[in-house]
Amino acid sequence: MSSSFGHAFRLHTFGESHGGAVGVIIDGCPPRIPLTEKEIQHELDRRRPGQSDIVTPRKESDTCRILSGVQDGQTLGTPIAITVENEDQRPGAYEEMAVKYRPSHADYTYDAKYGIRALSGGGRASARETIGRVAAAAVAKQVLAALAPGIEILSWVKSIHDLEADVDPATVTSEMIESNIVRTGDPVAAEKMIERIKEVRADGNSIGGVVECVVRGVPPGLGEPVFDKLEAELAKAMMSLPATKGFEIGSGFAGTRMTGREHNDPFRMVDGKVRTTSNRSGGIQGGISNGEPIVFRVGFKPTATIMTEQDTVTNDGQDTQLKGRGRHDACVLPRAVPMVDAMAALVICDHLLRQRGQCGL
Amino acid sequence: MSSSFGHAFRLHTFGESHGGAVGVIIDGCPPRIPLTEKEIQHELDRRRPGQSDIVTPRKESDTCRILSGVQDGQTLGTPIAITVENEDQRPGAYEEMAVKYRPSHADYTYDAKYGIRALSGGGRASARETIGRVAAAAVAKQVLAALAPGIEILSWVKSIHDLEADVDPATVTSEMIESNIVRTGDPVAAEKMIERIKEVRADGNSIGGVVECVVRGVPPGLGEPVFDKLEAELAKAMMSLPATKGFEIGSGFAGTRMTGREHNDPFRMVDGKVRTTSNRSGGIQGGISNGEPIVFRVGFKPTATIMTEQDTVTNDGQDTQLKGRGRHDACVLPRAVPMVDAMAALVICDHLLRQRGQCGL
Amino acid sequence: MSSSFGHAFRLHTFGESHGGAVGVIIDGCPPRIPLTEKEIQHELDRRRPGQSDIVTPRKESDTCRILSGVQDGQTLGTPIAITVENEDQRPGAYEEMAVKYRPSHADYTYDAKYGIRALSGGGRASARETIGRVAAAAVAKQVLAALAPGIEILSWVKSIHDLEADVDPATVTSEMIESNIVRTGDPVAAEKMIERIKEVRADGNSIGGVVECVVRGVPPGLGEPVFDKLEAELAKAMMSLPATKGFEIGSGFAGTRMTGREHNDPFRMVDGKVRTTSNRSGGIQGGISNGEPIVFRVGFKPTATIMTEQDTVTNDGQDTQLKGRGRHDACVLPRAVPMVDAMAALVICDHLLRQRGQCGL
Amino acid sequence: MSSSFGHAFRLHTFGESHGGAVGVIIDGCPPRIPLTEKEIQHELDRRRPGQSDIVTPRKESDTCRILSGVQDGQTLGTPIAITVENEDQRPGAYEEMAVKYRPSHADYTYDAKYGIRALSGGGRASARETIGRVAAAAVAKQVLAALAPGIEILSWVKSIHDLEADVDPATVTSEMIESNIVRTGDPVAAEKMIERIKEVRADGNSIGGVVECVVRGVPPGLGEPVFDKLEAELAKAMMSLPATKGFEIGSGFAGTRMTGREHNDPFRMVDGKVRTTSNRSGGIQGGISNGEPIVFRVGFKPTATIMTEQDTVTNDGQDTQLKGRGRHDACVLPRAVPMVDAMAALVICDHLLRQRGQCGL
Repeated sequence: MSSSFGHAFRLHTFGESHGGAVGVIIDGCPPRIPLTEKEIQHELDRRRPGQSDIVTPRKESDTCRILSGVQDGQTLGTPIAITVENEDQRPGAYEEMAVKYRPSHADYTYDAKYGIRALSGGGRASARETIGRVAAAAVAKQVLAALAPGIEILSWVKSIHDLEADVDPATVTSEMIESNIVRTGDPVAAEKMIERIKEVRADGNSIGGVVECVVRGVPPGLGEPVFDKLEAELAKAMMSLPATKGFEIGSGFAGTRMTGREHNDPFRMVDGKVRTTSNRSGGIQGGISNGEPIVFRVGFKPTATIMTEQDTVTNDGQDTQLKGRGRHDACVLPRAVPMVDAMAALVICDHLLRQRGQCGL
Repeated sequence: MSSSFGHAFRLHTFGESHGGAVGVIIDGCPPRIPLTEKEIQHELDRRRPGQSDIVTPRKESDTCRILSGVQDGQTLGTPIAITVENEDQRPGAYEEMAVKYRPSHADYTYDAKYGIRALSGGGRASARETIGRVAAAAVAKQVLAALAPGIEILSWVKSIHDLEADVDPATVTSEMIESNIVRTGDPVAAEKMIERIKEVRADGNSIGGVVECVVRGVPPGLGEPVFDKLEAELAKAMMSLPATKGFEIGSGFAGTRMTGREHNDPFRMVDGKVRTTSNRSGGIQGGISNGEPIVFRVGFKPTATIMTEQDTVTNDGQDTQLKGRGRHDACVLPRAVPMVDAMAALVICDHLLRQRGQCGL
Repeated sequence: MSSSFGHAFRLHTFGESHGGAVGVIIDGCPPRIPLTEKEIQHELDRRRPGQSDIVTPRKESDTCRILSGVQDGQTLGTPIAITVENEDQRPGAYEEMAVKYRPSHADYTYDAKYGIRALSGGGRASARETIGRVAAAAVAKQVLAALAPGIEILSWVKSIHDLEADVDPATVTSEMIESNIVRTGDPVAAEKMIERIKEVRADGNSIGGVVECVVRGVPPGLGEPVFDKLEAELAKAMMSLPATKGFEIGSGFAGTRMTGREHNDPFRMVDGKVRTTSNRSGGIQGGISNGEPIVFRVGFKPTATIMTEQDTVTNDGQDTQLKGRGRHDACVLPRAVPMVDAMAALVICDHLLRQRGQCGL
Repeated sequence: MSSSFGHAFRLHTFGESHGGAVGVIIDGCPPRIPLTEKEIQHELDRRRPGQSDIVTPRKESDTCRILSGVQDGQTLGTPIAITVENEDQRPGAYEEMAVKYRPSHADYTYDAKYGIRALSGGGRASARETIGRVAAAAVAKQVLAALAPGIEILSWVKSIHDLEADVDPATVTSEMIESNIVRTGDPVAAEKMIERIKEVRADGNSIGGVVECVVRGVPPGLGEPVFDKLEAELAKAMMSLPATKGFEIGSGFAGTRMTGREHNDPFRMVDGKVRTTSNRSGGIQGGISNGEPIVFRVGFKPTATIMTEQDTVTNDGQDTQLKGRGRHDACVLPRAVPMVDAMAALVICDHLLRQRGQCGL
């Protein structure tokens, strides 16, 4: 079930980067939720290649089509299938990679696992795989808007290489994030980051960074002990995204250097609600949301495909060299932002329905 | 399915800290695997309270009993149920906590989710819940020894508070780790860490730290794209452990500050095998093991229960104060080591059987 | 996941007939449901051996113990573990069966599948395995009583061998069924059936029969297209019971001999409700309950263990003979009734929670 | 997960009868299995409307397209998505049914469950939904041919209305079944059945019947106690097909009228193999295959849509009448045969991979 995610709000994705199409089936979606291709296309356009001059210039319209589960702009409660046809396939660009394993790519491991792999493009290991997730998340956001209005999911670039952005999770807005092509909430850092990405790309190199995400307005009570703790589900969701190397919530690794006296979040009654006066817990305690903003960070490695000669081996066991070709992102962070948004929406929506099933809302 | 973990090698845990018993059912275990209570008890003893003078002095023998699935020291292929009776219950120590929410504990969130919670002890949120995981992992290790001999899983304390241990994942041994009660591979750091834990405890405070884990000898090909990537499954497994705040694999968050040229792991043929000359990937590429050691780190926050007056609220919405009582670990790290071992073993065993099912071994 | 059943209300059973204990974990049970060992014991007593002089005289008290998930008579929303210790183990009675495969038993197939089997008793293939199901169903009935009051589940012996009982699913009561030890709603047939069972047993032979079940008061809307149709889930539930050979719902196989004009259930408005004037659909249309009584039948084969010499083979491939020993039911029907009740309750409860999760109630 | 089936070989279907397309994703398929659209189209053509003059004349080519998971005629081990575009949509034919509930259809229950339903055609309750199953089964058959050659799955019409066919499960061949448009192994009965279907159709009425299926060459050891017994999985698979009313295996309901002495299958050694000299078990004992032919029967009700005025109600609660329109099968049996084949193939393939995962092959 490697391509399925979620228990109550469940998605099943498919598609190689250079096959006929990529897509997703969403099963378990509540009925009578407003949904058209417009909401889905909006999210797909945020992850699309060619959207700005710091991402891959690949030209793909990524136009979605709803095949089932929706009638006259409303969900039927039955499986929603969404497909995006593949375009701009240039197998030519990949001939060399069919015999040489790209360093730090999935070429070798797919061969080791399956004894076969998609020879053109990255197959399932391509970032193109995330189209299904993003499309499903657009549906999840419609469900959240209908069943738990007020939930707000925002992700932004927190750092690129050694450049840190100064963004306040409590006040950052979608407008601030989308106001710059690098998708950070700090306009000053944005300029530096864009410059850095262009420098690195010109050098045939690549860089990584960190995406931060806040989910505001989550009601207390979401998340399930013991294995499906909300932070565990978020960790899996984020670490299933291509190129991720780390996940931390609330105080994260820095919290391991604090004492309990410094780290604990005191409770206080505010407007008749149980609140905490600090949020080192990151909005989750014992695996269950406590009503405070859920805040976490996801680390992305530098893009593996670089325009530089590197040592590698052939699929018949010969040492050789390989230099990247084709059109790739020198930095995935700007396009990773909508992917992090998407996975967060999927986890929250799934747990909202699970909570309604077991405990009622 | 909040208390179930794994697809092919599947466990289901149960038990509150102060109920009748805690335990686990393991379903899908291969038949004819050597297994007795001895192997299970060995692992349980490593996580037991009262095992040294830097952990909670709670006296619990944690004696396991196999109820099913095993005959004459061999697994039957049917569900293996293992229970550990609860002892040393002193509800008295918890009366105050029944009405006052412990800061940074799950008391409030369980009430918010279920409208009820175990009033004595931490219920499912207690570290006692991990007994079922550790018992199941002892079985998983027997399966690995039988089906994939040579796999070695080792975890150790990498840091406590601001004290770092110097341990080489390539050469550290079980003996080195178990040679000191803090369970690190660095004898010098061990002394300092033990001292620090005692100081902090004497001060009625607590501290956290980082556990590092290496899995050596994993065959290439384990892990499933897209959502069940091996690092995603490990992340969920680790972040489902109590008190965890972060997970990183290979280069982790530090890797986000490198360039692709620095970060990529070149391939070379060594003794006819495809190997990498560096391991910033942490043994996993595209979600699938590549045969190199799998290396990851897990961050644990300082213990929430401290012997210090803190601000909190009552379950009827009054501001109040609470000072911790009862016997608790001032630092969970030494006991977290076998828990990290356990979750790693469960993930690897599950994916070994999944791989055999889909692709054969 | 061979010993797991249900999606939202999920159970995991364990236990060989002659191991330490049998039992079940229930995960996903709503919180704050009234529950004590009393309700569970009541159902277990209905399936217990030795309860009347037409069932096996085996003496087992089958006393249940709740290990977790319940506090002061209320469910916590966490996993509920229930165990029943095994008693009265007489391996002696099974020595011969350790080497000779009992005809129409699972001895040979367990060896073929696992290469090992429980040598004493029927292992997981023993009717004793159903204790976990019946215990879980007692919990399910408490959930139904709380969330959907008015649902009534009644099963009875419809036929034994060639003896048919005349029972009206619309009016039969629990009292009528429990008024005779064979558990049928027809007192006249009951006498004949009891007599027949005693004759057959005296002859060292065995007989089978059919159990009929009605579920009254199910709200419209339960059941999920396409694979989890309510009748499909009931069919699996019933065919997973030991010794079952067939399942039919509503008109069943007899319906295949009717024309559409005879078979269709016309709709009429009655007291403002959509009702059908006949119920050949058996309360389910398109896999979803329509509010009419759900009526189905389950066929049970004659008990395989008979006190007669039969041809069989040894586990080392020699032709031989075997004559049954030990104490067995000559007819499982009276004890099958509570098992059918139980599986029906589990399916309805699971789908009630699934419906609440996706669509609300 | 109402539209998912299988654990190891897992499918997810989607599609309303009159939406954009219907289809399926298959996840968990072994890699390097020969597969092209040809094998899939062959099975789809067997279930297609308009294939003979006793089935619905609806004209739909049902042309399949593989979107992913296959490269150069071989499976990649990644999800295989298959779609079939919908054609010949004539919403006009359904206007009346948008407000009037068709008796013994799913119109009312879908409204009761979801509060909305596909107004044109049968939505997910249409037989068109089975396209995804049949396509997935074509893949399953390729897997079986590769991993367990010699398995043969054959289904045929055993009875229509009161007409019984005389077919020997041990010797019937695909050629015999496909030699007549009604798909039975008895040429004499075939003529009578064809005639009966035409008579009934001319009368604006419909009839049902029974499909029998044999699976020959299944190795011993498939099927999992206790809930996923092979017969339980087959029962669910078959009862999830539209219009099914009953399932029985081996001796079935007739077996409930036999004594144990008559019913038990004696074991004998034949050519060094453990065999039974009779097969009232239907090839499954204790939920696990015993190597004998698996034989079961599935009852189908008469088609609900008839060209006769019937009592029904409107979706706003008024009593009314409705006469069927559109083009429908007067008897689904000939087209049900490939559906039963398909579900049997899916169950066997899933359990073959599950067995390989837990026990090896």
